[in-house]
Amino acid sequence: MAALTGPVLVVGTGLLGTSVALACRRAGVETLLADVSPEHLRTASGLGAGRPMTEGDRPQLVVVAVPPAHLADAIGDALLTFGADAVVTDVGSVKSAPLREVATRVDPAQLSRYVGSHPMAGSERSGPLAASDALFDGRPWAVTPHEGADPDAVTVVEDLVALCGAVPVRLDPDAHDRAVARTSHLPHLVAVLVAGRLADAPPEHLALSGQGVRDVTRIAGSDPALWQQIVSANSAAVLGVLGEMRDQLDALIGAVGEDRRPELERLLERGVTGTRAIPGKHGAPRQPTRSVFVSVPDQPGELARLFADCGEAGVNIEDVRIDHDPGRPVGLTELIVAEGRAEPLLEALESRGWTTHR
Amino acid sequence: MAALTGPVLVVGTGLLGTSVALACRRAGVETLLADVSPEHLRTASGLGAGRPMTEGDRPQLVVVAVPPAHLADAIGDALLTFGADAVVTDVGSVKSAPLREVATRVDPAQLSRYVGSHPMAGSERSGPLAASDALFDGRPWAVTPHEGADPDAVTVVEDLVALCGAVPVRLDPDAHDRAVARTSHLPHLVAVLVAGRLADAPPEHLALSGQGVRDVTRIAGSDPALWQQIVSANSAAVLGVLGEMRDQLDALIGAVGEDRRPELERLLERGVTGTRAIPGKHGAPRQPTRSVFVSVPDQPGELARLFADCGEAGVNIEDVRIDHDPGRPVGLTELIVAEGRAEPLLEALESRGWTTHR
Repeated sequence: MAALTGPVLVVGTGLLGTSVALACRRAGVETLLADVSPEHLRTASGLGAGRPMTEGDRPQLVVVAVPPAHLADAIGDALLTFGADAVVTDVGSVKSAPLREVATRVDPAQLSRYVGSHPMAGSERSGPLAASDALFDGRPWAVTPHEGADPDAVTVVEDLVALCGAVPVRLDPDAHDRAVARTSHLPHLVAVLVAGRLADAPPEHLALSGQGVRDVTRIAGSDPALWQQIVSANSAAVLGVLGEMRDQLDALIGAVGEDRRPELERLLERGVTGTRAIPGKHGAPRQPTRSVFVSVPDQPGELARLFADCGEAGVNIEDVRIDHDPGRPVGLTELIVAEGRAEPLLEALESRGWTTHR
Repeated sequence: MAALTGPVLVVGTGLLGTSVALACRRAGVETLLADVSPEHLRTASGLGAGRPMTEGDRPQLVVVAVPPAHLADAIGDALLTFGADAVVTDVGSVKSAPLREVATRVDPAQLSRYVGSHPMAGSERSGPLAASDALFDGRPWAVTPHEGADPDAVTVVEDLVALCGAVPVRLDPDAHDRAVARTSHLPHLVAVLVAGRLADAPPEHLALSGQGVRDVTRIAGSDPALWQQIVSANSAAVLGVLGEMRDQLDALIGAVGEDRRPELERLLERGVTGTRAIPGKHGAPRQPTRSVFVSVPDQPGELARLFADCGEAGVNIEDVRIDHDPGRPVGLTELIVAEGRAEPLLEALESRGWTTHR
């Protein structure tokens, strides 16, 4: 039986808070809303995220989703007001500094009801109108209990994560902050620096913008006031990764400036290695595949015809390998498909006259 | 009448060359293919990109699409072999250095048949199997004639660009190289540096990777050998932007390290300005919009009901503004839609009982 039954009180109905509330509603859990802004509160309620909190409400879990500058205060208030009967969590991007601050406002027994957490989800947009009940589906959500946290409280928070469709990742607060400095704050700051270089460019140069620069700079469009707070709250870990970045940038400038091409290529290869280090979408391994072998005559358009027939058969081709034998007019093509799609593909291709090899 | 009627000879059937050939075939123009690799040539032909070139073929336009290290040689060969009757272009990422090299191999009259160009399209994948006839649709394609280029030759190349569905952008070779250093090479190198920081990270940290880091590092997965050649061929312009980047990185490190929050926020704001400098997808201004005003009762879920009804009416909401009047139980919501969709939306909402304001 689920530890989290509700009600859930969401304090702060911005993008994340409203999304948490919508996800709880999607799961049939009662939600209560609070926000210092009546406009945000009414919008969030209008969107179906829940009803405004009233005197006498007794939440089981309080989710604090306010901007970083007010986070410690709001967590402390929630613990003092509801902590006796409720669990308190938050969705803040940085864990250590707010935790230290909260620890100065409440005693250890009260603090044991607090379990920090952080969903790795969001968008460049903000506010309740940008919220979605599916924002967290398949995303990682860090759960960062301090040493004195109540194990039952941790279970309730992990239940919230599951209920919102996310994947819990347990880390202590310091490890979390070092991790996000690298996986979130550094990419953000770098995107900002690259975008800043565009702000100075002549329009005819900018006309040559392609998909790459859009991808790299997309997140630079986020709220500067919010990110100033995030970076400032994690300054030690952020300075660490920025320093590493500067060292590598200097190495790159040296390699390019002195035309040391093998060194430049090694730096570029390290980038490829890095992209492969990022886990698959849900942190799950790729699904198993099977190879389907087809003989394809080396005539113009024959390969295109094979792919078109695969498309009509409704089978997605994950990868293709072609073995041309220079001495023969027919090549063997290996189509890599999801394991369960191999038989249907073989049948579809055989019915269309292709020579397959079982 | 189109200047470019064909045949088009594509030299180098990798991603770009094969895509150009496929786009020409899509437009009904005859294509001929050449490649030092028989495998690539057979695959490209198999995909319907054209037939292998034979002795006696007389192309109208030669598109040189070989890797940067061989580019000048291949352009020179094409001019010497076909230049008397044909126009020669290329798709290389860097224009000045190859042009200077080619100018040492042919005389000015021969060189006048060469008009450099560069489509701003591609992917992290390479090779003919990754090609698509739609790769260039709506993309910018730089056309970079040198001073002695034949105006008729420029027209033929601009015709190719239009035929491939792209938008021509005229620049001289040096301006092009400075532009792409900023809009393409810098983002690429920065993505590589950020991805390099991930290669060193513990797996439990990487578990917290979200969409932002994936976007920033996606292009870092590209072929390191190719990018070494591109960067080396544009080293002067690249060093210029890398130097600007290092200065800004130092400023950022200073602001974070000394807790200068207003300065940090200004740097972040510059990033937002930069993202807005990137032109819309096709370099075209946004389409005109119109506002539709609807009264929405401040009850839980009412706003969600309005959006659901908009969705059922098949009208896309570009933006929303909500005006809550604290004294009234009804709020006025402004829905911003494409101009031609406003009337259909008003009718649909009115038929569902909403109070609109025309």
